[in-house]
Amino acid sequence: MITAVPVMRELGRKVRNWGRWGADDERGTTNLITPGRVAAAAGLVRTGEVFDLGIPLDGDGPQPGGYRINPIRLMSETGHEQVLPGGFKWADDYVFMPLQAGSQYDSLAHVHYDEQLYNGHPASGLNVKGADKCGIHTQAKGIAGRGVLLDVARFRGVEWLDLGSVIGPDELDMVAAAQGVEVGPGDILLIRTGWRAKFLADQDAAGFMAGEPGLGLGCASWLRERDVAVVGSDNFGVEVMPGENAGAMFELHMVLIRDMGMTLAEMLDLEQLATACAADGAYDFFYTGAPLKFTRGVGSPINPLAIR
Amino acid sequence: MITAVPVMRELGRKVRNWGRWGADDERGTTNLITPGRVAAAAGLVRTGEVFDLGIPLDGDGPQPGGYRINPIRLMSETGHEQVLPGGFKWADDYVFMPLQAGSQYDSLAHVHYDEQLYNGHPASGLNVKGADKCGIHTQAKGIAGRGVLLDVARFRGVEWLDLGSVIGPDELDMVAAAQGVEVGPGDILLIRTGWRAKFLADQDAAGFMAGEPGLGLGCASWLRERDVAVVGSDNFGVEVMPGENAGAMFELHMVLIRDMGMTLAEMLDLEQLATACAADGAYDFFYTGAPLKFTRGVGSPINPLAIR
Amino acid sequence: MITAVPVMRELGRKVRNWGRWGADDERGTTNLITPGRVAAAAGLVRTGEVFDLGIPLDGDGPQPGGYRINPIRLMSETGHEQVLPGGFKWADDYVFMPLQAGSQYDSLAHVHYDEQLYNGHPASGLNVKGADKCGIHTQAKGIAGRGVLLDVARFRGVEWLDLGSVIGPDELDMVAAAQGVEVGPGDILLIRTGWRAKFLADQDAAGFMAGEPGLGLGCASWLRERDVAVVGSDNFGVEVMPGENAGAMFELHMVLIRDMGMTLAEMLDLEQLATACAADGAYDFFYTGAPLKFTRGVGSPINPLAIR
Amino acid sequence: MITAVPVMRELGRKVRNWGRWGADDERGTTNLITPGRVAAAAGLVRTGEVFDLGIPLDGDGPQPGGYRINPIRLMSETGHEQVLPGGFKWADDYVFMPLQAGSQYDSLAHVHYDEQLYNGHPASGLNVKGADKCGIHTQAKGIAGRGVLLDVARFRGVEWLDLGSVIGPDELDMVAAAQGVEVGPGDILLIRTGWRAKFLADQDAAGFMAGEPGLGLGCASWLRERDVAVVGSDNFGVEVMPGENAGAMFELHMVLIRDMGMTLAEMLDLEQLATACAADGAYDFFYTGAPLKFTRGVGSPINPLAIR
Repeated sequence: MITAVPVMRELGRKVRNWGRWGADDERGTTNLITPGRVAAAAGLVRTGEVFDLGIPLDGDGPQPGGYRINPIRLMSETGHEQVLPGGFKWADDYVFMPLQAGSQYDSLAHVHYDEQLYNGHPASGLNVKGADKCGIHTQAKGIAGRGVLLDVARFRGVEWLDLGSVIGPDELDMVAAAQGVEVGPGDILLIRTGWRAKFLADQDAAGFMAGEPGLGLGCASWLRERDVAVVGSDNFGVEVMPGENAGAMFELHMVLIRDMGMTLAEMLDLEQLATACAADGAYDFFYTGAPLKFTRGVGSPINPLAIR
Repeated sequence: MITAVPVMRELGRKVRNWGRWGADDERGTTNLITPGRVAAAAGLVRTGEVFDLGIPLDGDGPQPGGYRINPIRLMSETGHEQVLPGGFKWADDYVFMPLQAGSQYDSLAHVHYDEQLYNGHPASGLNVKGADKCGIHTQAKGIAGRGVLLDVARFRGVEWLDLGSVIGPDELDMVAAAQGVEVGPGDILLIRTGWRAKFLADQDAAGFMAGEPGLGLGCASWLRERDVAVVGSDNFGVEVMPGENAGAMFELHMVLIRDMGMTLAEMLDLEQLATACAADGAYDFFYTGAPLKFTRGVGSPINPLAIR
Repeated sequence: MITAVPVMRELGRKVRNWGRWGADDERGTTNLITPGRVAAAAGLVRTGEVFDLGIPLDGDGPQPGGYRINPIRLMSETGHEQVLPGGFKWADDYVFMPLQAGSQYDSLAHVHYDEQLYNGHPASGLNVKGADKCGIHTQAKGIAGRGVLLDVARFRGVEWLDLGSVIGPDELDMVAAAQGVEVGPGDILLIRTGWRAKFLADQDAAGFMAGEPGLGLGCASWLRERDVAVVGSDNFGVEVMPGENAGAMFELHMVLIRDMGMTLAEMLDLEQLATACAADGAYDFFYTGAPLKFTRGVGSPINPLAIR
Repeated sequence: MITAVPVMRELGRKVRNWGRWGADDERGTTNLITPGRVAAAAGLVRTGEVFDLGIPLDGDGPQPGGYRINPIRLMSETGHEQVLPGGFKWADDYVFMPLQAGSQYDSLAHVHYDEQLYNGHPASGLNVKGADKCGIHTQAKGIAGRGVLLDVARFRGVEWLDLGSVIGPDELDMVAAAQGVEVGPGDILLIRTGWRAKFLADQDAAGFMAGEPGLGLGCASWLRERDVAVVGSDNFGVEVMPGENAGAMFELHMVLIRDMGMTLAEMLDLEQLATACAADGAYDFFYTGAPLKFTRGVGSPINPLAIR
């Protein structure tokens, strides 16, 4: 059992991928998604059915206010007042939003400790202009490859896991075994906790953000051993909150993002995909989800597709 | 030759897809991307090489100001001032941007005339709150399928076509024949004019937006006959500007979007993809590009992937 | 007693100022602040003490989220990364905010009914581009003149009035009499309900916006008879909420703004001013508060000054 | 003549007001606007005529794009789609803007050098969250007092001074003498260069921002000797640009803001005020202009009033 911040740092050292893809690397574990793996993953497309994993971006999203808000989209043109040659009329809109308001990737610049980002890049390079290293634009070619869903809520037989419920490495193994799927190198692993189902049921943004069920710290080594490329979830932070150790917060974020160099995908909607996977028992698929290329950005909204 | 606005309306009636997918349809020609076609398109992945077609979203983009601006991304947190349990530090950012500032899809609500949108939906439903019909969220499952590149600039042997240069249907046939590729039902057709190459060479935003080479009105029937699902280009509006008829503007937009129900992809970067296609002569690939799910939105920024 | 919507419309007709300052007028009762009255009001400055009546614009404001948010101010430059000739370093910031997020004027375009704005201007002129008539820029010369504070909370001997507590015309007379002040033509009348004091005490944004004590419908005629130019208050909407009539909402807004042509000032902080007025018994002062000149804007944030 | 950066620093030391109003002071020369001076200034109101000195805030402003843009105001509600009790309909709008897009005050946190702000406050306190010292909210009680206009363009007999034209201290004396006005302690001094008139004539935003006529470095001591509280102008930076010394930029900004602690007012419209002053020869007036209370903000848009 992991009980103190020094242990978190020790864990970070253990699973660290610094230098593995060169001293200048800014991409981390998405390097594991090699062209060969992409090509193999495309072979997982069977019927061509497409599942969109992004949540709607509008005022009814899961942000209760505070440091992030739901997107505010406003119209700049509707066309009705325009008098243009040939009767042409056009509409346009603007958005103001946190880049991590809804379904999103955390760039590897999202989290730091002890003055360093992933791969030892100095945290001082993260300033008012953005991230000089590990910005989300460095993941521009997207995250396309083999996706695997581990449906923990279904495994437990519940609609959703409770706030604070920890998912440990043993349970990941058990879910995989029950589903008949293996998790391997370069995979995009999606964990379904049911937290999105809860929000869809109660529309309680404050409740959605008050904490969550999710991965425990023990999963870090499990993910490292399997060389998983990306972990995504239907909650807002992948990891369990409150965390397992009282004196710390977001420890798994620190270990996964800063030490392991792992991109996280958060606030996904896995509901329809999970239903389809359960129906035919096939829990892997072709996943494609590219971030928008915000230069030096810390995160990006996404709408990934799972294609079966 | 098409010479007057009444002719544009006549053309619109001729290529119109209203009612084809039901009276309530809001998706138009993306209905042509059936699961079977998606599955077939996945088979085009050979080496697994990924090309990202979105342009960078930052202050150096192609918007000179005026009714659209380049995205303004600002940091809300860098972490440096935070004192949190366990040494956790996090960064976050916000963006303010037109949804059509860079690489983007036009929703079918982007353009209207004679008080109607695609499929006869009343334009009055497009108001300060957005598009009650044909919003970009209705394309949420994305546009994933067979992509075909027609590299007109390479065919003509120029770095880029001149502003105002018209690409007609005959030339599309000639380029396809020269490339040894066929364009068929449900395809995502990408037209390379070199307009992006020009911008990369001169970084002249005002010049980029002052007009462009692009498709002529005559291409509408060509696209309709082949049942193309989506047309994208490396210019800002797909069609030639100034348009072919002095008394009108954006006529092809009106015909394609409002009459045919075709989603357009604009301001793509096709440079590296074109180089790769030229190198091995394979001009079709698996294209995946999902819009963000802006509820009632008129457009969405995108970063599509071409996977070969 | 006023009990139904038809009665509201009847009241509107009775107090209406349409045509009084010409058929094209867009300013309404601020026309009552004549140069002579401005000059006389300047004579109210005695010690030169200045009271700022605007509330802070930051994330801790009274907007709980939903259709308005608190201002989001983000830095674009701090200077620390700049290397410029002569060692020059500069900082800059941006804001995204509803124009009515905090202390603010309602323009006369803020409210309409029966398809008409103040002075019969068609409501259809209010569209996605803003207000073609009665925009806040038409009040650009500001509201400078005799300010009068009526401290209803102090009169009642309470810290703040309860949510839903109605202030009627008789009470306005009693407060004025108790304070030894008269309200007359061209005055900027400030009503203190204590609602700001409540927010300062409990920092409860949701509570602040859930309703409020304020003026009842009966005050409309009282204001009209005295030819008051502007009414301001420390609550968010001047009038009592819930309103006096179950089948309607914001009836006083409709009558004052749309019929009488009165500019409202909302969410002011009257606390320190009230203390000073109570200390020396002088309840009138020189008030100056200009809106920002947002062309076609519906409202404007303000920070008015009361100078005694 | 001042010719090098060391000389700028020497000048800064000479005119410095650090410690003058206490070690914690964040307001600088606005401390000079004492209540007594406010009261005296109110006595300058003669006819009650009001001049609004702010420029319109809209898309036609003087920002050509780049690091600042013109304000973008977008409607969130027009009322037309609302169906509310009693027929109530309301409109609302949002703005996204640089706080220094138009007429504005520079807070004392706007400029720094050698790691210090005004009064020796460490520049490190200026971070992604804003200004921990000298934020614009510290000027909340506004700038209300004796305003004096020096109309340099009229003195020279030109519509506007040329870009790069230097106004020196001797000329300030000559203009004051010609106008029959004296500049004294606590005054808000407004310098008319005609740069706004040029913009109104040519609507050339890029030209407006390309440089400007304005005060030379020699004016710093002149302002210090007279204990002027605030300097404003109709150009964008008060001082001449390009500056007098090739190896530096914004030297007067550095000396006035960081060393002297002087608030600057920029991009004012002094045209109508100047005409009125010339007509009756009275060049002083009551000036009132409060910033919006952006907590920790670096600047604030303003619409000051000159009341004669």
